[in-house]
Amino acid sequence: MTTNMQVLLASRPIGWVTEENFRIVNTPIPKPAEGQILVRNHYLSLDPYMRGRMDDVKSYAAKQELNEVMGGRTVGEVIESKNPKFKAGDIVQGVYGWQQYGCSDGTEARKIDVSRVPMSAYLGVIGMPGVTAWIGLLDICQPKAGETVVVSAAAGAVGSAVGQIAKLKGCRAVGIAGGKEKCDYVVKELGFDACVDYKAGRLNDDLKAATPGGIDCNFENVGGEILDAVLRRTNAFSRIAVCGLISQYNATEPYAVKNFRMILTNRIKVQGFIVGDRMNLWPQALKDLAGWVASGELKYRETVAQGLENAPKALIGVFKGQNFGKQLVKLI
Amino acid sequence: MTTNMQVLLASRPIGWVTEENFRIVNTPIPKPAEGQILVRNHYLSLDPYMRGRMDDVKSYAAKQELNEVMGGRTVGEVIESKNPKFKAGDIVQGVYGWQQYGCSDGTEARKIDVSRVPMSAYLGVIGMPGVTAWIGLLDICQPKAGETVVVSAAAGAVGSAVGQIAKLKGCRAVGIAGGKEKCDYVVKELGFDACVDYKAGRLNDDLKAATPGGIDCNFENVGGEILDAVLRRTNAFSRIAVCGLISQYNATEPYAVKNFRMILTNRIKVQGFIVGDRMNLWPQALKDLAGWVASGELKYRETVAQGLENAPKALIGVFKGQNFGKQLVKLI
Repeated sequence: MTTNMQVLLASRPIGWVTEENFRIVNTPIPKPAEGQILVRNHYLSLDPYMRGRMDDVKSYAAKQELNEVMGGRTVGEVIESKNPKFKAGDIVQGVYGWQQYGCSDGTEARKIDVSRVPMSAYLGVIGMPGVTAWIGLLDICQPKAGETVVVSAAAGAVGSAVGQIAKLKGCRAVGIAGGKEKCDYVVKELGFDACVDYKAGRLNDDLKAATPGGIDCNFENVGGEILDAVLRRTNAFSRIAVCGLISQYNATEPYAVKNFRMILTNRIKVQGFIVGDRMNLWPQALKDLAGWVASGELKYRETVAQGLENAPKALIGVFKGQNFGKQLVKLI
Repeated sequence: MTTNMQVLLASRPIGWVTEENFRIVNTPIPKPAEGQILVRNHYLSLDPYMRGRMDDVKSYAAKQELNEVMGGRTVGEVIESKNPKFKAGDIVQGVYGWQQYGCSDGTEARKIDVSRVPMSAYLGVIGMPGVTAWIGLLDICQPKAGETVVVSAAAGAVGSAVGQIAKLKGCRAVGIAGGKEKCDYVVKELGFDACVDYKAGRLNDDLKAATPGGIDCNFENVGGEILDAVLRRTNAFSRIAVCGLISQYNATEPYAVKNFRMILTNRIKVQGFIVGDRMNLWPQALKDLAGWVASGELKYRETVAQGLENAPKALIGVFKGQNFGKQLVKLI
C-alpha cells in the first residue's frame, strides 16, 4: 500500500447524515518529521458525538472543518518513529481520525498493552465509552445498592457497560433498547434485570412494569420520548446523567420535553456531562473497567465494519441503531 | 369576635384556580386542650406552591384535602397557652392555615422577635421565601464573583432576594419580570444590573442584550418559554436551580421544553429542590438574611390583601403576576 485513504467531510448534513456528506480521497502516506511518529490505524471508533461535530454550531466538541479528515479515535501500530518515547511496533491508542495512516508528535497517543485484551477493546469497554459509563453512573448518579438504574441505548457500547456496572453495585438494572434481539442480548447475555423494547409501542406501560419501585438513576443516551417516559417514573431525589441525546442529533426540529416538571416535583438532579471534562477520573475508571473485563464480570460486544470506505455507512447505522455494542471500522 | 372564619378547599381546580374552588365558613373558636396553644393569626402567607397541593396528584407537598382548611404559613399572637413553652402574648410563626384562629401543640410554632423587624417579614424575606432564595442560589448554583445570575419572577418574594444576594456575592444580577413597572422596581430599587420584561415580546433578544457574557446561574421560578430562552443563553458548566414553574401550575397541558439539549451541550447541572428538604441550612440562611435586612443590604416589598375573605382572589393574583414582592393577607 502506498497511499493513505482518508474520509473527508464534504458537506454539512441537514437532518440525517448521508453518504454524500463524505468524500474519500487517496493522498501520499505522510513522512514523520523529527519528533513525530507514523501510525498505521487498525481500528477506527465510530461514536454518536461525531454527529454534533458535523454541524456548524457551537457545541462541546470542536467543530469538524469541511474538506478535512474526519476526526476520531483509533488504535494502530507505530510503523516509524522519530520520537524517543515510541518505537516501531508499539501499539497505540490515538486520535488519528478517519484515515489509514496518521502522523503526529505523539502527544495524544498512548501505548496500550494488547497481551491480554484485543486492541479494539481500547476503543470501547476499556476506552472512552467504558469510562463514560463509569463516570456517568458512579460519579454523577452515585447509585446505592437496591436502587433502580435505567439506561437507554442499552445494547450500545456505553449503555451495555452502564447496566453491568449497576449490577456490580447491587442495583436493579433496566435497559431500554430497540427490538427484541437487542433486549434479549441485554437481559440474557449482559445480565440486566429487564429491558424495554421501545419499538414495541407500549413504552410507558412496559417501563412501568420493568420499574415497579420507580427509577432512582437514569443514564440518558437517547432523549426524546424515551426521556419523557423515564421522567414519569422517577422517584424523589433521583439523578439523571445526560450523556447523549442520539434521537435528536439528526432531527431538524428538536423534540420538546413534556415532563420537565418532574425535575421540580421529584427534586431531581440532572447533569449533562462529557467524559473529557473529568480527566482526573480516567485512571480509576480504566483500572476498574480493565479489572472487570479480565474477571469476566464486564462483557462487551463489537460491531465491525470492514474497510475505511464503509465508515460513512457504518456511522449512519449507529444513528439508526443498527449496531450491537461498540461500532468499529477495521482498516486492515 | 366569637367565630373563626376559615377558607376551605371546596373543589379541585381544572386549569386556572377560581374563587369558586374555595368556600368560606365560620366555626367556633377552638379551645386549647392541655399542652396546646391558641393562636390568633395576623398574617397569612400566599405562595405559588399552594397550587400544586390543590391537585389530586402526587407532588412534593402533601395534598390539600377537600373540605379542609387550606394550609399555609402564618404569623400571629398566642392568646391562650396550655403549653409551658409558650405564654399569651408570644408572637409566633406557624402553619395555621387560612383561618383566623389556629390551635396546635406548638410543634411547628416558632417564637419570633418582632422588636426590630415587623412580624410579616418572617413570612417573607427572613422566612421560607428568603431561605428558598439563599439555598437555591448559594447552595445549588454556587455563583462565583463576576458570573451572571438570572432569576425569573424577579419582582416576587423569592426572586427579589435572589438577585440582591447575587449582587452581594459580586455577580451580575439579571431579572426577568412581567411589565415595565416591575422591571423598574427590580433595577432601580433592588439594584439588579438589568431586568428583561418578558411581556414586551422580545424575550430572546432582550435577554441576549442583558447577558452579554451568557448565563452562568439560573434560578428558575417560572418555566415555559422563559426557561427555553434562558437555556439558549447558558454558558458551559452553568447551574440551574429549579425552584418553581409557576407558568405551568394552572396549565392543563404542560409546556414542552425545546432546548433541553443545551443541558448536554453545556454540561449544565439542573437541580430541582424544595426548601423543606434542606432544613440543616435554615439556621445559616436565616442568620445571613436577618443580617442583610438589618444592614439595609437586602430590601423587600409586600403586597397585602386585607381580610381573610380576600385570600382566594389574592392567590389567583399571585398566579397572574399581580403581586410585588411577598403576597400576604392581613387578617386583623
